[in-house]
Amino acid sequence: MLLLDEKHKAIGAMLATELLEVEARFAEELGSDLTCVNDLVRHVERYRGKMLRPTLVLLCGQAAAGEGEINDAHRTLAAVVEMVHMASLVHDDILDEADSRRQGATLNALRGNEAAVMLGDYLISHAYHLCSSLDHQEAARLIASATNTVCEGELLQLANRYNWQLDEATYFDIIERKTGALCGVSCRMGALASGGAMELREAMDRFGRKLGSAFQIIDDVLDLVGNEQVVGKSLGKDLEKGKLTLPLIRHLAHAGEAEREKVLALLRGNDDDRAERVGRLLIESDAVGEARRCAETIIDQAKGELVLLPQSPARDVLESMADMVLTRNA
Amino acid sequence: MLLLDEKHKAIGAMLATELLEVEARFAEELGSDLTCVNDLVRHVERYRGKMLRPTLVLLCGQAAAGEGEINDAHRTLAAVVEMVHMASLVHDDILDEADSRRQGATLNALRGNEAAVMLGDYLISHAYHLCSSLDHQEAARLIASATNTVCEGELLQLANRYNWQLDEATYFDIIERKTGALCGVSCRMGALASGGAMELREAMDRFGRKLGSAFQIIDDVLDLVGNEQVVGKSLGKDLEKGKLTLPLIRHLAHAGEAEREKVLALLRGNDDDRAERVGRLLIESDAVGEARRCAETIIDQAKGELVLLPQSPARDVLESMADMVLTRNA
Repeated sequence: MLLLDEKHKAIGAMLATELLEVEARFAEELGSDLTCVNDLVRHVERYRGKMLRPTLVLLCGQAAAGEGEINDAHRTLAAVVEMVHMASLVHDDILDEADSRRQGATLNALRGNEAAVMLGDYLISHAYHLCSSLDHQEAARLIASATNTVCEGELLQLANRYNWQLDEATYFDIIERKTGALCGVSCRMGALASGGAMELREAMDRFGRKLGSAFQIIDDVLDLVGNEQVVGKSLGKDLEKGKLTLPLIRHLAHAGEAEREKVLALLRGNDDDRAERVGRLLIESDAVGEARRCAETIIDQAKGELVLLPQSPARDVLESMADMVLTRNA
Repeated sequence: MLLLDEKHKAIGAMLATELLEVEARFAEELGSDLTCVNDLVRHVERYRGKMLRPTLVLLCGQAAAGEGEINDAHRTLAAVVEMVHMASLVHDDILDEADSRRQGATLNALRGNEAAVMLGDYLISHAYHLCSSLDHQEAARLIASATNTVCEGELLQLANRYNWQLDEATYFDIIERKTGALCGVSCRMGALASGGAMELREAMDRFGRKLGSAFQIIDDVLDLVGNEQVVGKSLGKDLEKGKLTLPLIRHLAHAGEAEREKVLALLRGNDDDRAERVGRLLIESDAVGEARRCAETIIDQAKGELVLLPQSPARDVLESMADMVLTRNA
C-alpha cells in the first residue's frame, strides 16, 4: 500500500519531526560526566536503525488521540522503549557472540563482553530513570512488566539451545515474550498517553504483540536465508547457537525419518557451509514459505485488532507498517 | 560496641522479623511461570548474605520514624535495593570471571555467561517492577538515578583496568559510584518512607555513601590479603583483572623508583604466587594499614552524618553497623 496523499504525508512529517525529538531525549538522558561512558554510548547510538518501537508509540498515540496531538509523555515513552530495545541488542550480541550489527562491529567484539554487559545495564537503568520522570506510575509498571517478560523469553530460549526437539508452541512462547512483549507495550503506551480507554489499550497491546511476533519470525527467516550484506548483521547465528526457529521446526516436523536424521546430523556437525546447506533445504521443502505464510496470518490478526481505532491516516500507516513487516529484507 | 540491653534487642528482633518479610517479597516478585527461570533464581538466592542494603533501609527508616513504625514501603524498598544488588553481583561475576561466591559456584561458572547476563537483567527488571508498585515516583527516580551511577562506576573501573598509574582520586570516584551510591540511596529511601525532611534524607544519603565507600575499601583489602575460606569467594581477582585498589595505589605512591619497578614487574607478570607476594609487600610497607585507617576516617565522617537523627536504639545500631564495616573479615 502506497500512502502518498496529503493526509498520509502529514503523518510522515509528524513522525520525522517527533523521532528527531525522541533521539534528542535519548541522547540527553544518556549523557554522563565521564568521557569513557560517553564514548561507549556514542558507539551504540550507531545501532539505531528502524526505530520500530518509538514509531509504534507515536503512531498508536496519534491514532488513539483522534483530533488530539502527540504530547510530551509520548515522546518520553518512545525514547524509553527504544532505550530498552537498545539494551537488549547489546546484551543479545553477547549471548550470540555476534561480531557485527548495522554494518558495524558490535560492542562486545570491539570492547569485550565486560563493557557490553555494563553498557547494557547503563541503558536499562537510564530507561527506567527516564520513565520515572513521568507522572505515570502505570506506564512504569507496564514497561517493567514487559521487560520482565522479555527476560523470560530470552531465558526460555537459552534453556532450549541445542534442543533439536523444540516444538512450535515453545517457539511461539519464546518469540511472543522476547519480541512481542516490548512491541505490545509500545503500542499500549501510545494509547495510554493519549488517554485511550482500557479496551483500546488492550487491543493496541495485542496488535503490537502480534506485529512483534511476526517481525521475529521474519527475522529468524532472514537469519537462515537472508543476504548478510543487505541485512547488515552476522547471519546464521541461530544455527550456530543451537536455536531452532520456525522454518526448521516445520521442516523437521514434516520430514520422514531419513530426512530428519540427515538434517539433524548436519545441525550437530561443524561443516563450514552448514548454514547455506540448511537454508537451501528449507527453501526447497517450502518450510521457509510456510514460515512466511504463518507470519502473514499473524499480521492479518494484528490488523484485525485495529478495528477499535477510528478511521484515520495514522491508523492507515499502522496497517501499512504491519504489511511492511512481511516484505522487509533487512 | 556491644548492644545487649532490651531496647537494642528489640531493634534486633524487628530487623529479624522485617528481613524475613523482605525475603518473602523478594521471592514472590521473582516467581515465574517458567521452571527454567525459577531454577536460576533459586541458584542466586543462595548468594544472599549480609543483607546490608535492606538493613540500611530498615534501620534508617526506624531511626527517622521516631516513635513510628516500619511500614510497607520500607519493606518493598528494602527488597528492591537487595534485588538491584543481587543483579550487580551476578553481572560483576561475569566481569571478574569469578568462579565462587558465598562458598558456592557462581552462575556464570555453572551455567555460562549467557544465563548470567540474562538472569542479571531479569533481576534488574523485577527490581524496577517491584519499585513501580509503590506510589512513590520520587523513590523510583532516585533508585534509577543510583543505578545509573553504579553503572558509571563499573564502566569507569573497566576503563582503568591495567592502568597501573591509577590515582587515588579516580579510585575514590569509582568506589563512591559503584558501591557508595546504592548504600546511599538505601539510607535515603528509609528516611523518605518515614516522611523524613529533605535535610535528613540528604544526610542519610551521605551516611550511606560513606559507609558504602569504606565497605568497598575493606572489600578491596580482603581481596588482597583476606583468607579465601573465610571470605567465601574467589580472591586475588582485582590483581588478575588489572584493578588497582587503595593499598596498592598507596604503596606505589610511596615507593622509590626501584621498588615501584619491582612491583609493576610483578603485577605485569604471570607468576602463580603473584597475589600472595603482592599481599605480603603491602602488609610490610603498611599500605594495608594505611588503607584500613583511611576507611576508619570515612566511617568517622559517616557517623558524623547521624547527628540529625534523634537519639534512639536504631541510631545506635546504625553507628555500630558502621563500626562493623571496619572489623569484618568476610
